[in-house]
Amino acid sequence: MEVFEAILSRRSVREFTGEPVSQEHLNAILEAGRWAPSGLNNQPWKFKVVSSGEMKKELAECSTCGDIIKTAPLSIAVFLDGGEGYDRTKDVQSIGACIQNMLLAAHSLGLGAVWLGEILNKRVQAEKALGAPAGCELMAVVCVGHPLDKKRSSSRKALKDVVLG
Amino acid sequence: MEVFEAILSRRSVREFTGEPVSQEHLNAILEAGRWAPSGLNNQPWKFKVVSSGEMKKELAECSTCGDIIKTAPLSIAVFLDGGEGYDRTKDVQSIGACIQNMLLAAHSLGLGAVWLGEILNKRVQAEKALGAPAGCELMAVVCVGHPLDKKRSSSRKALKDVVLG
Repeated sequence: MEVFEAILSRRSVREFTGEPVSQEHLNAILEAGRWAPSGLNNQPWKFKVVSSGEMKKELAECSTCGDIIKTAPLSIAVFLDGGEGYDRTKDVQSIGACIQNMLLAAHSLGLGAVWLGEILNKRVQAEKALGAPAGCELMAVVCVGHPLDKKRSSSRKALKDVVLG
Repeated sequence: MEVFEAILSRRSVREFTGEPVSQEHLNAILEAGRWAPSGLNNQPWKFKVVSSGEMKKELAECSTCGDIIKTAPLSIAVFLDGGEGYDRTKDVQSIGACIQNMLLAAHSLGLGAVWLGEILNKRVQAEKALGAPAGCELMAVVCVGHPLDKKRSSSRKALKDVVLG
């Protein structure tokens, strides 16, 4: 899929068919995340892939969006690895760039994904469920799967309202 | 350009030909930024485009990368608009997603771009140079232009080193 088409047509997908995500597609999504830019190229991200079992159940309990985690074949937890960090603002920005790469990658593969930030309300509980190593701070969970066929729309502010004169 | 090709082949471009960036290309880059995802779709970004004059000169003086700002036909300052923000971590992540969209857009148009974070060392001075409205915090400057022909390489950690077991 072409870059602009992907950026403009990507939507948050919260409903998935039962079809699993192939290892090949998962690898492509993680590769896209891995190639994000970061300050001093410090690559402060770590990923934890959750697809089943007790961990998935416990992770789902950390979010009001738990049903999405339960029905998504894959959830990718994205951490900021404090040991690799050098500047909080720049590191968190690079995590956002990394997540966006993964969302665009999933969309371009015909998959759907949603960026869950709400789970940070129970961040410590979620980190425990994920077995996060010391120093790894949960930044978001990205749920991925085959999108249920549905019309999805979104909107943005007009360009004139975000470009300063 | 295809999404994966763009993600994997994008490099920081710090040397530009003198050729200006067309208004059409600038608009496409800003559109890409505008369509980034954000928590609660709050779109906390603001952009200021700098292409010439005293402002460009003063902005360049705020960074050790000032020569890049001076030679780039365009610099896009990206702000976090505190008035639109709701959660610092999520807002800063979305700024990163927004910047990544713009970098991918520029690359896919055959342009080159670089994400300057170092300028935050003189953030207040840069905000003054840019005439930033109250509440708008500079997050980065993205310089854009036609890339000087040059081999550019980069590297990333192996996937096994960023995926937690």
